Amino acid sequence: MNSNASIITLTTDFGYGDLFVAEMKGVILSINPQAVIVDITHDVEPFDIVEAALIIGYSSAFFPSGTIHVVVVDPGVGSDRKPIIVRAGGNYFVGPDNGVFSRITPDKSVEIAGDKYMIRRDSPTFQGRDIFAPVAAWLSRGVLLSEFGPEIAACKSIDIAGPELIGNELRGEVIHVDRFGNIITNITETNLSQIGKEYQVYVKSKPVGRAAFYSQARPGVLNCLVNSSGHLEIFSYRNSAASQFGISKGDIVVVSCMKD
Amino acid sequence: MNSNASIITLTTDFGYGDLFVAEMKGVILSINPQAVIVDITHDVEPFDIVEAALIIGYSSAFFPSGTIHVVVVDPGVGSDRKPIIVRAGGNYFVGPDNGVFSRITPDKSVEIAGDKYMIRRDSPTFQGRDIFAPVAAWLSRGVLLSEFGPEIAACKSIDIAGPELIGNELRGEVIHVDRFGNIITNITETNLSQIGKEYQVYVKSKPVGRAAFYSQARPGVLNCLVNSSGHLEIFSYRNSAASQFGISKGDIVVVSCMKD
Amino acid sequence: MNSNASIITLTTDFGYGDLFVAEMKGVILSINPQAVIVDITHDVEPFDIVEAALIIGYSSAFFPSGTIHVVVVDPGVGSDRKPIIVRAGGNYFVGPDNGVFSRITPDKSVEIAGDKYMIRRDSPTFQGRDIFAPVAAWLSRGVLLSEFGPEIAACKSIDIAGPELIGNELRGEVIHVDRFGNIITNITETNLSQIGKEYQVYVKSKPVGRAAFYSQARPGVLNCLVNSSGHLEIFSYRNSAASQFGISKGDIVVVSCMKD
Repeated sequence: MNSNASIITLTTDFGYGDLFVAEMKGVILSINPQAVIVDITHDVEPFDIVEAALIIGYSSAFFPSGTIHVVVVDPGVGSDRKPIIVRAGGNYFVGPDNGVFSRITPDKSVEIAGDKYMIRRDSPTFQGRDIFAPVAAWLSRGVLLSEFGPEIAACKSIDIAGPELIGNELRGEVIHVDRFGNIITNITETNLSQIGKEYQVYVKSKPVGRAAFYSQARPGVLNCLVNSSGHLEIFSYRNSAASQFGISKGDIVVVSCMKD
Repeated sequence: MNSNASIITLTTDFGYGDLFVAEMKGVILSINPQAVIVDITHDVEPFDIVEAALIIGYSSAFFPSGTIHVVVVDPGVGSDRKPIIVRAGGNYFVGPDNGVFSRITPDKSVEIAGDKYMIRRDSPTFQGRDIFAPVAAWLSRGVLLSEFGPEIAACKSIDIAGPELIGNELRGEVIHVDRFGNIITNITETNLSQIGKEYQVYVKSKPVGRAAFYSQARPGVLNCLVNSSGHLEIFSYRNSAASQFGISKGDIVVVSCMKD
Repeated sequence: MNSNASIITLTTDFGYGDLFVAEMKGVILSINPQAVIVDITHDVEPFDIVEAALIIGYSSAFFPSGTIHVVVVDPGVGSDRKPIIVRAGGNYFVGPDNGVFSRITPDKSVEIAGDKYMIRRDSPTFQGRDIFAPVAAWLSRGVLLSEFGPEIAACKSIDIAGPELIGNELRGEVIHVDRFGNIITNITETNLSQIGKEYQVYVKSKPVGRAAFYSQARPGVLNCLVNSSGHLEIFSYRNSAASQFGISKGDIVVVSCMKD
């Protein structure tokens, strides 16, 4: 096993105040004491599968090849939804088959079926500890994908809605507010290229200026830029745009082409 | 030293926003750069020794043998309460002798007495950094228990109250609300077995349904199950039972036997 | 490369709920899978350069020689403020030249100029991922300081105000409230030594008692001590002094000499 193979990341909605994450780490280190465990985040909004899918979709691209990503946002734990492993581009993704891997393009997916590599197959409430953590640890020790269970044809994919192009207007929405109160939209650089370089952005019908970077904007007014994940982002320099202007997840964002 | 011996976990009420945890990690890595440091949690309710005792009691069971667990929830820091090391079942526990190790059954306990393995013996406000972190790091480098100080007969144990069995009824209480708003009680699987399989749970006099796993329950109503730590847990599927029903730590939970 | 050289710490205002920190860690581990990454904190108040300067100033002293400290509190990201590396006392500090290293005394500072060791030189919004993380990782692999760019004469230093000594009185202020609600002032042990051992502390004109350690004080009243960073700290035993007495950052703290 090379050292890259032993990086295991964790993305959950377990928070930082309970023992869930610690128990997963203990299980992993009991099986592979050489595993390097990296927290992506444990502050996914509880049960928000789409948020988890976006976070792992973007951040996994920055980890070295061979990384094993465990994602546990799992309202259906204990039901008959399958536990799965997805191999994609040299990396591995371990979690429930509920859409958390919607932004990953699988090379091969298997159902975790045998109980050889898990603590408890019928784990009713905490498969993060009883199934996904030990499976990730055994993967990191070189157990082959085929050892965990049968290949499955497809895994569940949630349609994560992009903006609509109506005439010369993109109609999108706010999908996330970050720690700074910056407003992340579902409108990407690719979407923007459809309507050319001259456009005007509106959020909740308020006009939004444009800037290349944050400190280029005057404080106290709304501006936008394309952020580090390639999404249109609306901000207020050194302020929370969200709380200052009362903007939240789901609010409408419109981009109008200015040439007709 | 084998690699297992160098896992050091940290459980504190220091939070994530101050420099306390970082200074402890710096001290540990200065003494043993090979130590693998794992955060259990730093969000223990300030000064809540019982919460710390329960968290380390449950989560330490999932770490490999030889792990060193440092627990610093320490309202009496600087007073004459002793700093101690507890060896139990192949693991080590380092912290104040104030009850944080009440759920650990010691094989041997020593008072940390000599100042050879600490930064500052009379540390008035931050023994996490000045005593417990360096002691844990030296332990991980193979220093023997007896080197740190004299054996003590017993360490302080807090009675963590379980439920009362009155007639055919268990009377317990809420001991924790987790990140999802799930309600953890002090009633365990072992307690439940005392009154048989047919029982009815009440919280604050409200009747609670039963489910095997979360998604088996209808949203919006209270249900219960035995959770991954073996405790009776009350939940509202995809909701916070705590905020939806106004339930908090200390509220009464009753389990009534339905056969008489 | 020795093992010390591969410790990389992170101090940011990115919080724990977004993907920023994870992407930085992925970049570091892609370049140096042997790097040991330690979070100092990601909860620096957004844009608060002074808070970041104090945190890294104090906590870096506890890490082993050769540690690389990355600090990203960077409201000017994308503007013409320089990205820099500071070498000081055998350690390295990587971040924006905006004052975050005001409490570090440089042996040598360089501007990060070439794009050989970064992902994207003109990164408009996320130089933590695109410049500082990869530069730290290459430093940890032994790339020489001079390889990153030209030496600069000085880096930006913010004057972090200490208290004023007026007659036999020190006039300082509250600079931080910690997780326990303890009140940290800008008055240090060195300042206090200027007015002798007999003094009376006031916060917002309220008199404050003195204690050697927390549990020496009666609950419910204000007391003070010199804390583990050498600052005068005001507390209320087992309570939040800040919320109990309505004290916050910027409030005036006076220390009066009692001998005249």
